Amino acid sequence: MIVVLTGGTGGAKFVQGLQQVVPAAQITTVVNTGDDLEWWGLHVSPDLDSITYAMAGLLSRERGWGVDDDTFHCLEVIGRLGAPTWFQLGDRDLAVHLVRTQLLAQARTLTQATERIIRRLGIASRVLPMTDAAVETRVMTPAGELSFQEYFVRERWKPEATGVKFLGAEAARPANGVLEAIHKADSVLIAPSNPITSIGPILAVPGIREGLRHTPAPVVAVSPIVAGAAVSGPAGKLMQSQGLPVSIEGVARAYADFLDALIIDQRDADQTSGVESLGIAVSATKTIMRSLGDKEALAQAALAAAARAVKSRALETR
Amino acid sequence: MIVVLTGGTGGAKFVQGLQQVVPAAQITTVVNTGDDLEWWGLHVSPDLDSITYAMAGLLSRERGWGVDDDTFHCLEVIGRLGAPTWFQLGDRDLAVHLVRTQLLAQARTLTQATERIIRRLGIASRVLPMTDAAVETRVMTPAGELSFQEYFVRERWKPEATGVKFLGAEAARPANGVLEAIHKADSVLIAPSNPITSIGPILAVPGIREGLRHTPAPVVAVSPIVAGAAVSGPAGKLMQSQGLPVSIEGVARAYADFLDALIIDQRDADQTSGVESLGIAVSATKTIMRSLGDKEALAQAALAAAARAVKSRALETR
Repeated sequence: MIVVLTGGTGGAKFVQGLQQVVPAAQITTVVNTGDDLEWWGLHVSPDLDSITYAMAGLLSRERGWGVDDDTFHCLEVIGRLGAPTWFQLGDRDLAVHLVRTQLLAQARTLTQATERIIRRLGIASRVLPMTDAAVETRVMTPAGELSFQEYFVRERWKPEATGVKFLGAEAARPANGVLEAIHKADSVLIAPSNPITSIGPILAVPGIREGLRHTPAPVVAVSPIVAGAAVSGPAGKLMQSQGLPVSIEGVARAYADFLDALIIDQRDADQTSGVESLGIAVSATKTIMRSLGDKEALAQAALAAAARAVKSRALETR
Repeated sequence: MIVVLTGGTGGAKFVQGLQQVVPAAQITTVVNTGDDLEWWGLHVSPDLDSITYAMAGLLSRERGWGVDDDTFHCLEVIGRLGAPTWFQLGDRDLAVHLVRTQLLAQARTLTQATERIIRRLGIASRVLPMTDAAVETRVMTPAGELSFQEYFVRERWKPEATGVKFLGAEAARPANGVLEAIHKADSVLIAPSNPITSIGPILAVPGIREGLRHTPAPVVAVSPIVAGAAVSGPAGKLMQSQGLPVSIEGVARAYADFLDALIIDQRDADQTSGVESLGIAVSATKTIMRSLGDKEALAQAALAAAARAVKSRALETR
């Protein structure tokens, strides 16, 4: 069983690659829900949906979020009716939010609602929210505190980020199955997602970070930072807000207490010493995922690094 | 001010005609909400929406309900996710239900939510639900009790109707403005809607029937029964279940305690004696509304009958 901790965009691509090399039934994803929001009265889980759509082959390639070839007719009328439209939901996408919201209203957990949705879409993998509790990523800016989607989508991550917090995380418990999956995994992979606001909320749920430290499985991350900048999105700005360098070393430091190996881009191959000095193995490869072949090769590289980590541990303990 | 008591289908067409001859700002509709349902977790008010869409020029001519030229992409995915789809909501239509549901969740009344929606769509008329309370039309059948939409849409009104009840009506109060509108109207028109399950629920809200009896305004109805059958829908079957003949006399009897005049179709011009014997004036015209011209002429006929009723009352009281 391969466990993947992931956010939405980069993680969704990574998971598509992994599906090419590992049977779907052997993949468990543990997904960030710190970006979840109530929108038009519905419970929207952007990262869960990106992973779900990616696995079902429904993810829009063009947009990187939402359902491929979707229409936005509801949104148009919502706008006419005076409701906010800066967060866009397509017509097909809406169905998932409607069904999820109804299941939650019927006292199902987010884990159960997600399970129902992925099974109906024919996905054989497990897709687990990091927690069933409400954990809300908040971004501090000089103009005040924003929800993650306000910061990321509405303000297009232009405001300076002075800090990040995960409201509700302390009282949250990992969703059913998360700790067990991490403990029993053959490998744990950290997708090339934002370490602060995609992987960060997952690690903020009490028990998960500790589970990663103690799992017998190798833990391998893919760096979302290439050549001193994030491949996409605000990861760089947010790492700075946490006092981390925007580099592969910054990524390694965010995960140093549990990471066995870091996959970095070839362009950073001259910067490995800072990572290796943390006791983390490094493998350089092409990490920018444009084609399905790129995604598959990156997944292969991550699995190979995990296999090497197992071997090197076996040597150490001999 | 012209007040129209109405359901969805026939009433929506009638209101479109009325808009041709009376300024929209002088029309107040009082709309059946006994058909309202919770669907996909949303509060759906089919008759309010038909009237709203008709007045905004958005009503689908093809279907007679929902938004013109709408798509059903959300519905397709909802079906894939295993939720029921026998009641269809289009993608544009969904926007209204989402906004209404949110306003109700924010403790606005249905009257306030409707006001917000119609203003945003540029409608100058008043559109009032009959009540802000939950009143649910239930249809008894040999196989058990059904909600109106289960009977009408899901079962396509095939089951025998043995009775009708309006759950919650006794405790309901007319929505703000309804009784005042009826009292101050220049004319009150009863649209050619189903007397049992479209106009019936409105009359079941305590105070409305009495308001119609005592208003100084003439009250004129348009018969939805032509040549011994309903123009559309289950009005005939439901009138039978209430012991009413399926004829213009049956319609007149349903409204006998407050009606001044009944507009009937020319084809029923030989059957006026039963209506007239109830003290109700009769005008025969073409009542089938195919073109906008048909709708306009029918509205003109109803207003003319109202004017005649005023005159004849003035003569009586001289």
